[in-house]
Amino acid sequence: MRREITVLTETELRAALPLDMGAVEVVEAAFAALAEGRVIMPPIMSMELPQLNAEVDAKTAYIAGFDIFALKVSTGFFDNAAKGLPSLGGMVTALSASDGAVRAVFLDNGYLTDLRTAAAGAVAVRHLAPAEVTTAGVIGTGLQARLQIRAARLVRPFGRVLVWGRNPHKAALCAADLARDLEIEVEVCTSVREVVRRSQLVVTTTPSFAPLIEADWLHPELHITAMGSDAPDKVELAPACLRRADLYVADSAAQVALRGELRSALASGDWTGAPPVELGQVVTGAHPGRRDPRDITIADLTGTGAQDTAIAAHALAVLAGQGTVIRT
Amino acid sequence: MRREITVLTETELRAALPLDMGAVEVVEAAFAALAEGRVIMPPIMSMELPQLNAEVDAKTAYIAGFDIFALKVSTGFFDNAAKGLPSLGGMVTALSASDGAVRAVFLDNGYLTDLRTAAAGAVAVRHLAPAEVTTAGVIGTGLQARLQIRAARLVRPFGRVLVWGRNPHKAALCAADLARDLEIEVEVCTSVREVVRRSQLVVTTTPSFAPLIEADWLHPELHITAMGSDAPDKVELAPACLRRADLYVADSAAQVALRGELRSALASGDWTGAPPVELGQVVTGAHPGRRDPRDITIADLTGTGAQDTAIAAHALAVLAGQGTVIRT
Repeated sequence: MRREITVLTETELRAALPLDMGAVEVVEAAFAALAEGRVIMPPIMSMELPQLNAEVDAKTAYIAGFDIFALKVSTGFFDNAAKGLPSLGGMVTALSASDGAVRAVFLDNGYLTDLRTAAAGAVAVRHLAPAEVTTAGVIGTGLQARLQIRAARLVRPFGRVLVWGRNPHKAALCAADLARDLEIEVEVCTSVREVVRRSQLVVTTTPSFAPLIEADWLHPELHITAMGSDAPDKVELAPACLRRADLYVADSAAQVALRGELRSALASGDWTGAPPVELGQVVTGAHPGRRDPRDITIADLTGTGAQDTAIAAHALAVLAGQGTVIRT
Repeated sequence: MRREITVLTETELRAALPLDMGAVEVVEAAFAALAEGRVIMPPIMSMELPQLNAEVDAKTAYIAGFDIFALKVSTGFFDNAAKGLPSLGGMVTALSASDGAVRAVFLDNGYLTDLRTAAAGAVAVRHLAPAEVTTAGVIGTGLQARLQIRAARLVRPFGRVLVWGRNPHKAALCAADLARDLEIEVEVCTSVREVVRRSQLVVTTTPSFAPLIEADWLHPELHITAMGSDAPDKVELAPACLRRADLYVADSAAQVALRGELRSALASGDWTGAPPVELGQVVTGAHPGRRDPRDITIADLTGTGAQDTAIAAHALAVLAGQGTVIRT
């Protein structure tokens, strides 16, 4: 069977596939499909390599109506930094949903993951944040701190950003990058509490092992997206935050119970109710999002294979005709 | 980070990577590593797509001492046959065991799986079959029927092959192919029982849902490799065969209990003892293999991620400098 398979590199993907509303909308469609039961998504395959200080994950998801499904491998080799190499890597394969044939290989080194993770942040902000956001805060100073703010600004055109990071030097660098890229006012704050107090929208983007935001800091007219925790030992919000919110929304109810903010709230007994509403239910209108400007809302994002399939389908559509074609 | 990634196609792999002792030896090394606890191998990730009559599996395994590890995706789209397309497909990615970077992508459409599966058969025969095999039987008439016989012949130079298949036409074709390729005598038998009775070595290669070989057919000076069952609903040997054997060996004790012949023997109560010996223990000498020419031995092969990593490492070494190099 002769076939053509397209290989696209990180460079090609970065050049043609920006963080824009196209990316946000395809990821939003994936959340809608999740809520409507049109997604088949097995549990993540995880391989811990303690002797290498490394971890390898594989995710896949089939979304009815998409003509491909993605299989993604993500690598974290945490001794790489000392060698001057990036710690995170990986690639994505797109396979035909009609016959299983490999359609494309994205040698993206995690770029598609960055994009779909930021796009999910925009979906949460679009449906949950107050209509009027003048100040947005970000906790953390890494790549997702920058991308989440850029993504949020696609759906809420705020004019001021507050940044907090453990390392003041990195916070200053992140603030400078955001100010230059978005041409808006960006300020470094010296406490998380100040960021929360002055913002209508806060995104937490850290790999923290201890809560950074206390429940009594939450105030009316606030949305928080907690996207840093993606593993069973991470947490960014004090467990009491979840029930303090008027609405707490998960990307995947099953996954946040294992890897998101819900995990610690279940462990502490701060969450005893039904499983949380899913973002896709809000996207489709099956569950209301923000009901009142003064509501407090929280979105808990851990990352789903459905997002990977969505962004891979988007990449394949946008980059049609590009890349290296391999004939088998 | 600029990197070079090699893409190799099925055509390139078939041309340079035959079923030979090199393949057998690298797969044997993987079994030894498994037995010595040098392998980290998470459970298979399986995605069932009933609405498409399809299934997608991903496997990975890290073997200490190998400079790459493989992640393999296998597809089974069982409506493809009606469209004139192959039902099975997939590809293999080789990632650096030192920094996680993607080193190579094998667009092999399952060829490496065919090869490592046949090579595992040769490892089992090498360590378990009687030293003198004059007649080998094969149950099933598909690709693995042909490959298992070719693999077995690398380690036992028998002169006669007996073939049985449900479909006599396919059995005749398989026999003709084997006779031409191996230049030996090949005969089609009309019953499984006759194949077993006349052979010192039998390989079962079917996707059968009911036992094909009864325990009272087993005779002294016989080795059986059952490699067809790889899923929780398949079985080739009557459960009583396992305890009737002097030695029953699994590729992975954990996996055969879920997907191999052991599953039905556990369910029926025909196997109540300790977990079976693993092939790697026999390879390393930690457990004796065949002790007497008259012994009855059985090998139960379900396929492991360690074999995928071994064959991918072998392919990368043999095809060094070939393929399409992608610079990221």
